[in-house]
Amino acid sequence: MDITTVAGIIGAIGLILLGQALEGGHVGSILQATAALIVFGGTIGATMVSFPRKDFVKGLTLLKSAFTETKIDLAGLSKQIVEFAGVARRDGVLALEGRLGELKDPFLRRALQFVVDGVDANVTRDTLEAAVDAEYEENVVGAKVWESMGGFAPTVGILGAVLGLIHVMENLNDPTKLGGGIATAFVATVYGVGSANLLFLPFATKLKRKLGLEKERKILITEGVLSIQEGINPRVLEERLRAYTGEEAPPAETQKKAA
Amino acid sequence: MDITTVAGIIGAIGLILLGQALEGGHVGSILQATAALIVFGGTIGATMVSFPRKDFVKGLTLLKSAFTETKIDLAGLSKQIVEFAGVARRDGVLALEGRLGELKDPFLRRALQFVVDGVDANVTRDTLEAAVDAEYEENVVGAKVWESMGGFAPTVGILGAVLGLIHVMENLNDPTKLGGGIATAFVATVYGVGSANLLFLPFATKLKRKLGLEKERKILITEGVLSIQEGINPRVLEERLRAYTGEEAPPAETQKKAA
Amino acid sequence: MDITTVAGIIGAIGLILLGQALEGGHVGSILQATAALIVFGGTIGATMVSFPRKDFVKGLTLLKSAFTETKIDLAGLSKQIVEFAGVARRDGVLALEGRLGELKDPFLRRALQFVVDGVDANVTRDTLEAAVDAEYEENVVGAKVWESMGGFAPTVGILGAVLGLIHVMENLNDPTKLGGGIATAFVATVYGVGSANLLFLPFATKLKRKLGLEKERKILITEGVLSIQEGINPRVLEERLRAYTGEEAPPAETQKKAA
Amino acid sequence: MDITTVAGIIGAIGLILLGQALEGGHVGSILQATAALIVFGGTIGATMVSFPRKDFVKGLTLLKSAFTETKIDLAGLSKQIVEFAGVARRDGVLALEGRLGELKDPFLRRALQFVVDGVDANVTRDTLEAAVDAEYEENVVGAKVWESMGGFAPTVGILGAVLGLIHVMENLNDPTKLGGGIATAFVATVYGVGSANLLFLPFATKLKRKLGLEKERKILITEGVLSIQEGINPRVLEERLRAYTGEEAPPAETQKKAA
Amino acid sequence: MDITTVAGIIGAIGLILLGQALEGGHVGSILQATAALIVFGGTIGATMVSFPRKDFVKGLTLLKSAFTETKIDLAGLSKQIVEFAGVARRDGVLALEGRLGELKDPFLRRALQFVVDGVDANVTRDTLEAAVDAEYEENVVGAKVWESMGGFAPTVGILGAVLGLIHVMENLNDPTKLGGGIATAFVATVYGVGSANLLFLPFATKLKRKLGLEKERKILITEGVLSIQEGINPRVLEERLRAYTGEEAPPAETQKKAA
Repeated sequence: MDITTVAGIIGAIGLILLGQALEGGHVGSILQATAALIVFGGTIGATMVSFPRKDFVKGLTLLKSAFTETKIDLAGLSKQIVEFAGVARRDGVLALEGRLGELKDPFLRRALQFVVDGVDANVTRDTLEAAVDAEYEENVVGAKVWESMGGFAPTVGILGAVLGLIHVMENLNDPTKLGGGIATAFVATVYGVGSANLLFLPFATKLKRKLGLEKERKILITEGVLSIQEGINPRVLEERLRAYTGEEAPPAETQKKAA
Repeated sequence: MDITTVAGIIGAIGLILLGQALEGGHVGSILQATAALIVFGGTIGATMVSFPRKDFVKGLTLLKSAFTETKIDLAGLSKQIVEFAGVARRDGVLALEGRLGELKDPFLRRALQFVVDGVDANVTRDTLEAAVDAEYEENVVGAKVWESMGGFAPTVGILGAVLGLIHVMENLNDPTKLGGGIATAFVATVYGVGSANLLFLPFATKLKRKLGLEKERKILITEGVLSIQEGINPRVLEERLRAYTGEEAPPAETQKKAA
Repeated sequence: MDITTVAGIIGAIGLILLGQALEGGHVGSILQATAALIVFGGTIGATMVSFPRKDFVKGLTLLKSAFTETKIDLAGLSKQIVEFAGVARRDGVLALEGRLGELKDPFLRRALQFVVDGVDANVTRDTLEAAVDAEYEENVVGAKVWESMGGFAPTVGILGAVLGLIHVMENLNDPTKLGGGIATAFVATVYGVGSANLLFLPFATKLKRKLGLEKERKILITEGVLSIQEGINPRVLEERLRAYTGEEAPPAETQKKAA
Repeated sequence: MDITTVAGIIGAIGLILLGQALEGGHVGSILQATAALIVFGGTIGATMVSFPRKDFVKGLTLLKSAFTETKIDLAGLSKQIVEFAGVARRDGVLALEGRLGELKDPFLRRALQFVVDGVDANVTRDTLEAAVDAEYEENVVGAKVWESMGGFAPTVGILGAVLGLIHVMENLNDPTKLGGGIATAFVATVYGVGSANLLFLPFATKLKRKLGLEKERKILITEGVLSIQEGINPRVLEERLRAYTGEEAPPAETQKKAA
Repeated sequence: MDITTVAGIIGAIGLILLGQALEGGHVGSILQATAALIVFGGTIGATMVSFPRKDFVKGLTLLKSAFTETKIDLAGLSKQIVEFAGVARRDGVLALEGRLGELKDPFLRRALQFVVDGVDANVTRDTLEAAVDAEYEENVVGAKVWESMGGFAPTVGILGAVLGLIHVMENLNDPTKLGGGIATAFVATVYGVGSANLLFLPFATKLKRKLGLEKERKILITEGVLSIQEGINPRVLEERLRAYTGEEAPPAETQKKAA
């Protein structure tokens, strides 16, 4: 479970409702089925028009990953690649073949398979980089679906409010209904601004960030595997991968021995 | 028929009108010919000033493709290119000549013609890439026409509302007409904000996305055909094109045999 | 005469005034010299502060080209360049010298002069590309002047409205003047939002687009002339330039013969 | 004196005040020390938080150049460089040494010194380009300080207005004070929107543009000096630099002789 | 202590409160626990949903550096690197080994270690540049957390105001409470707009700028150390690094002797 997603949603909505209650407002007065119909109907409709069906579905299915914890252990991954570089240097790249079965990460396995198969380094680089980019581009469309929802919701909320105000204005001669009518109209704004800022836009940002981190992880694998293919010194590779893992540099003595 | 475009428009407008009706509003009160005249006249006029005639017409004609289903079968296309790579490797590129007639896709035919004609690889790449870019740039202007409409509509809607309010304010001494006048003025806002967010901006986004997918398809063809010209191993080509089609990697055994 | 510019302005302003008249508003009530003074004085002043004098003047003089039709015949230009390529291939580049006089386009003449003079290809490319870029950058500043006007006008309009409202509020005790005062204040908003969205921003967009098309035309000339210098096959050149002209590909037979 | 800066500020503020006076408003009613305290105090404070002290001071000192005329004579500069190219070609680069003393422009002197000293062309290019970029980046931060002020001022103005309205609302029971209170609150908006749009944002735009023109001038010097080092034909250099100066091409005859 | 951060915050908030007090407002009337609960609860919640936990924590810890003075002595650093270049040129790169211990800057030490260890120049460049970029990217996420807070706060503030207005509207029949209710509702706007513009957005800008300056410092080190590895003339290196330190050029005589 992604703790910030869940705690953020509960905290934001809970504190806002709590504040509202403390000021003496009834939660009931901001629960209105018709306002929800207008705002979410209009927002979802506009987003559907904006995207092909495949992208829209991708947006919906991708949402799950905003709620699930994604552990990315770059340090462990880096260590494993350095170990493989050691094996390859000592016993040749073919010695890696037996290790492929133990790998759970399909991208790492696929990348190492290129090395074991002796595919040309340029082809390996081009293919892996194109795969990483294409996968990112394909998924990031799903995040853009939520960004789009976050863009449409407030304006559709205003649309709902204006529609409500038109209704109020036409009945202006009965002042006792004025306040209630305006209150009802404003609920559409609350739904639009609230759903965009507390849900849709934050979802989009988190999904993008997670896709970005996954992309970085695959770039680390690509760089590491290409270095193995070059037959790089494992200690130099370790130093090189440290840029991606963000670890602190080891003391100078260690570095010296590695060289 | 593009299902999300049609369902999105019907759903969005339908649910908003339904919500409005449920709250007791009359649909008639938001149907006003003069507000439509002001908002759509002003929006279309501003957009016409913004674009040369050719671009404006391109925007209108391109709209059709937001409503029609575009099936892009990258997997099938990739398979066909891999097959052609096999033919070229076995029997030489001239053997592809007889196959050109069966191709329905004009861009694929044009690209393969370069290979059959033995045109220099750099000229082939430059020409195909320039053609793909130029076609995209030329069409994307049509999407920008709708984006422009979506940018002008809300501000022209506000312009209409302010004009209406001026009219109301000048007759402020007759309070019985006040509400109705303001209601009328607000309809211009509804038209501007509604048409921009439920129609124009979603159209622009969908058109851009479809043009982007078509561009990707042509880039896949370009890469594939250039690989055929290089005489690449069809299985390596298959692996390479997989980046574009987004298919899952086959099991490691298959990959190994291919190498 | 640029038909979309003229028709767009007349249409937009005409339909808005028509709508206003149909609703019973007097055109006279939105004609106010003081509001115009505030909005246009402030907008022009802010734009003057934003740009050096030379850029500001460039913006004013460039406006003419938003109103004049610019015929760009890329197909004819491409045909002429292909013909020159044929001459150069058959009789050598010096044979082009006699043709220079008949050229009306100064950029094409200048570019071909490099070829005739036997200037090094890299120098030719660098010089022509730098000239195309520099001319575009220099002119596009003029479009940015209008963009700037379109950015300042609505905010200065709001400034004018707020100033008017302050005046109204100070005289709140005389309610008979309230409505008229507010109406007067709103006129500044109408001028600001209207001039920005119906004139300034559309002008900027059209100017940029026209400058972009002119730049593309010069890039076509540059590519064509450099190809002539390389001694390219005229039919391959024709195929290459087709990317810029956006023409459909000829049937496969024609292509084959050309190769 | 930069004429557009001075005339623009005087014109904008003058015409707005004139318009205000013509509508019967008192200039006195928009002069309020407390509103100024809130808007400018808040804006300057927010900008100080946004930038390190050095950048903030750079913004203040840079402002002077928005008010002073900067004559950039690219044609004369280009002519001088072409002349130096002639000297270098005829008598060798060392012959330029005696001319260095007469140069007033420190960057041109520094660049030519590299040539005279026989520094490697790549080192010369890297060093000069890095110096041009670094100087631009360092100065453009000063323009961003004003851009930041222009971004904060309207929102702080709204903050001031809302604070004023809160004060008004708390005393709603005394309607005679209502109008005056609202008027006072609105003055903060006038200060915020006005200072941003008539001063801060235009300052930022002009400063950026002037820095950009100065950068272009130094790029022209860099290109020119590197061409001298290459021993380029002075007439070809003249043609090449014409891209930067934006001059019209000379008649074809002149060009021909030059080659 | 970062003087502009502290003085900016105190100045902005102090002057705004002073202005408010001078106009006769009570500071107490803008102190409302429930409004704070809604605005900051909602803003922090939305930001938590937007970022993975690690990034959110990074944002919080990074804030400290907006308040602490960061002395970056590029001139001194440049001098030291030039001195090392002299040592390396005279006595070989191994002579630098003894000096590594005296270096306090871990990045400079790490970079020089590569030179001393005789690591290949391309590997050195790739590794150091990747490390500089990765560190910047990792930290800049922390600045984006504050930018995000600055984006959400005003909209959540408006949400709070609308919720308050709904409450007011439902009790419209008791006019004596109207003003106070609206005033209360507006406080949420004050909190949202104020915190975003006086704190969150300025924090984000300052953090980004400081990270950018630190990145530049490391790029200077990278360039300097790579130049040492190339065995560059220390005086040419001094000239080259001057681009980064922004110092004025020394008089021509000095330059000449250096060459």
